[in-house]
Amino acid sequence: MPVNRVLVANRGEIAVRIIRACQQLGIETVLACSEADRDSLGARIAGRAVCIGPASATQSYLDARLLVNAALSTDCDALHPGYGFLAESAELAQLCADHGITFVGPLPEQIAQMGNKIRARVLAAELGLPTLPGSTRVETPDQAVEIARGLGMPVIIKAAAGGGGRGMKIIERLEDLPGAFTAASNEARAAFGDGTLYLERYIRNARHIEVQVLGDRHGHVIHLGERDCSLQRRHQKLVEEAPAPRIPEALRQAIREAGVRLAQGFGYENAGTVEFIVDADAQAFFFLEMNTRIQVEHPVTEMVTGIDLVQEQLRVARGEPLRFRQQDVCFRGHAIECRINAEQVGEGFRPSPGLITRWSPPEGPNIRLDSHCHAGYRVPIYYDSMIGKLIVYGADRAEALMRMERALEMFEVEGIATTIEFQKFLITQPRFAKGEVNTRLVEEVLEERRTGA
Amino acid sequence: MPVNRVLVANRGEIAVRIIRACQQLGIETVLACSEADRDSLGARIAGRAVCIGPASATQSYLDARLLVNAALSTDCDALHPGYGFLAESAELAQLCADHGITFVGPLPEQIAQMGNKIRARVLAAELGLPTLPGSTRVETPDQAVEIARGLGMPVIIKAAAGGGGRGMKIIERLEDLPGAFTAASNEARAAFGDGTLYLERYIRNARHIEVQVLGDRHGHVIHLGERDCSLQRRHQKLVEEAPAPRIPEALRQAIREAGVRLAQGFGYENAGTVEFIVDADAQAFFFLEMNTRIQVEHPVTEMVTGIDLVQEQLRVARGEPLRFRQQDVCFRGHAIECRINAEQVGEGFRPSPGLITRWSPPEGPNIRLDSHCHAGYRVPIYYDSMIGKLIVYGADRAEALMRMERALEMFEVEGIATTIEFQKFLITQPRFAKGEVNTRLVEEVLEERRTGA
Repeated sequence: MPVNRVLVANRGEIAVRIIRACQQLGIETVLACSEADRDSLGARIAGRAVCIGPASATQSYLDARLLVNAALSTDCDALHPGYGFLAESAELAQLCADHGITFVGPLPEQIAQMGNKIRARVLAAELGLPTLPGSTRVETPDQAVEIARGLGMPVIIKAAAGGGGRGMKIIERLEDLPGAFTAASNEARAAFGDGTLYLERYIRNARHIEVQVLGDRHGHVIHLGERDCSLQRRHQKLVEEAPAPRIPEALRQAIREAGVRLAQGFGYENAGTVEFIVDADAQAFFFLEMNTRIQVEHPVTEMVTGIDLVQEQLRVARGEPLRFRQQDVCFRGHAIECRINAEQVGEGFRPSPGLITRWSPPEGPNIRLDSHCHAGYRVPIYYDSMIGKLIVYGADRAEALMRMERALEMFEVEGIATTIEFQKFLITQPRFAKGEVNTRLVEEVLEERRTGA
Repeated sequence: MPVNRVLVANRGEIAVRIIRACQQLGIETVLACSEADRDSLGARIAGRAVCIGPASATQSYLDARLLVNAALSTDCDALHPGYGFLAESAELAQLCADHGITFVGPLPEQIAQMGNKIRARVLAAELGLPTLPGSTRVETPDQAVEIARGLGMPVIIKAAAGGGGRGMKIIERLEDLPGAFTAASNEARAAFGDGTLYLERYIRNARHIEVQVLGDRHGHVIHLGERDCSLQRRHQKLVEEAPAPRIPEALRQAIREAGVRLAQGFGYENAGTVEFIVDADAQAFFFLEMNTRIQVEHPVTEMVTGIDLVQEQLRVARGEPLRFRQQDVCFRGHAIECRINAEQVGEGFRPSPGLITRWSPPEGPNIRLDSHCHAGYRVPIYYDSMIGKLIVYGADRAEALMRMERALEMFEVEGIATTIEFQKFLITQPRFAKGEVNTRLVEEVLEERRTGA
């Protein structure tokens, strides 16, 4: 499969990241951008930029046919979808295949297999991965109540087509279930065009740990270690790190091997992430879902393995066998990523688009910033509020933490509100410093801050 | 020994590097700068900057008493000398000790021991390190001829107080020796205030390989691997890499162990570099000298070990034991550094100071730039011509080389002439790409280019 000219079907920092990876491999790039992104950094550094539609994502980045047409009209032989938008669209992958365009990602049927969270869970269970006690498709509120009785409270409602926390609800009391079920179904239908729901037992002291896998066309799959992404707010990750802190080595190995077993089990190609929920009390882990694309938080894995994941995506997409056996992967040190958003923290994290009048990022060894922003850039109102990812490396977690704290202190942005200060507040919380993380930590420290406790 | 506020007794990129390392450890900084460096990046990011004298280095950076006074008057309890200037001045280290200032480096007597290249060689030989057949102090041209007869031609004349290629001459024919000896002695006297010379056998197919060592106050010494710095022009390094390419593993280990043996042999403290000359034909290595300071090329070691050398310098200076045992040091991947100078390559590498009107460095993962320059910065005429160090990391040497090539292509500087293009020419030479390096490679490819061969 040729990969000589890549259509970059995304925007923001990941578009810049993909373009740079292509450049380093001597691959040409064309950026497909909306009218709002015409003057973006990605458009400037790509070999060429083509405008595919207006700012509205549904008429640009979310239209598979527009993207494929853009690739064809610019003689691209490959397409990289990035993350978000259509990165997990089996339709886009299939359209690419139909038109002889190399999709830098897995096969369409692999995306579809994991895109339906119920099918994904069934496959994981068949392959012997531990899964959370839960249901397959639930049709009615009454049926949900019956299943919840069997699982025991609390339970969590999830959308089969889900992602990003939409259609997701935690239910503590059985009597709240019917109303929440109907609301979640409506939310899922609105977000994904599919209101199908399922139930799972909810784990209170839960950590989110995910395994980075990489497969090629020749049946090889390796893992590149795990990431802990427990620091979330409303199911949106805020801080990610590798390796996962304070976890028994046997559990770490079991999680990594489970990730490989799943990917190998259905011949997975390209980069993917197998997500697990870890019950921090019981030291048990359960398969959650698999993301069939590059992940926002991939840089922490790159820093502890020294492997450039986007370059490896391009290599395996053009049919090369993996360049590393599992034993060649050398894990070293500790990396932390803080997502920086244009948001008013004090006003419920309300998006804060607008003109960046000053942009002075931290610099120095072992500090990496993945961003498309600069002074004079206007953060558009149309897309998500992430303006960059600050990543640091340290010989150990303490060093990485200290480096992140200083880096956040030195990061100066003016003109828009950002989450820089909030991230510094988060990573200096004693519980985080000790590595005692779970998925409720952010909400709890926010609550403490509100009440002054 | 306290290290709470550090006087940074240097300029340029290394001043910036030291200030950032201090900031990350929560250590305050004061930059001692000349009038010419008042508006430099270092002066801007340091906690405070004090002007110690006019642009002339002899009246500022080379005056130990001025530096110590600056430290005392700004309540600094430590001083970091960087490299060059007084970094290897036993006098400065002693002055610091006399005034209760922690010198971030070895003890004065350790600097003196290695500062005299003849004493250094004697110590190395006593500790069982292989040394080149050569002499101790040579007094007269006649005596030099007699010694050279015993060594066999060619020989190399070196200055006992030497460094940077000054006072160094390669002699192919015995009849050229007396004249060259007198010239070298005058050159050494002018450069170091000491005309003492010695002779060594000259190795034609030689590689320059050096070992990074790190010692603490508690008797521990480890190595952080070797660097190959064979690409030199007039004894000035141009390109450095780690690990050394194309070298038998047994030889690599023997060189690393020799570096540790020497440092351990005289209780060396702090970061140091033990330099060896490797006879690429005979696969033999010989002790050359030891540099008792941080090295320009230290970043390549940082990238393959994940250890921040300047931070570790500060830690051991304040009395902490080393944080790593030898077996904790994990070597991974390959790193290359290109020194970027403000020079007119076509005019004999004549310095090209002046106003930088455009400064657009390459960006992206695994690309590091250590520099004090920016658009609007005027490169002063008073100091050396290095304007930055471009360092890349790759999973292997081929990946690092490709990344360096692209990074150099993307590096745009206007207003002054630079060696960026020349560095790209160098690293794309087939012999370098194959790792067939020696200390004559640069002169040979320059000669080929001149003659169009």
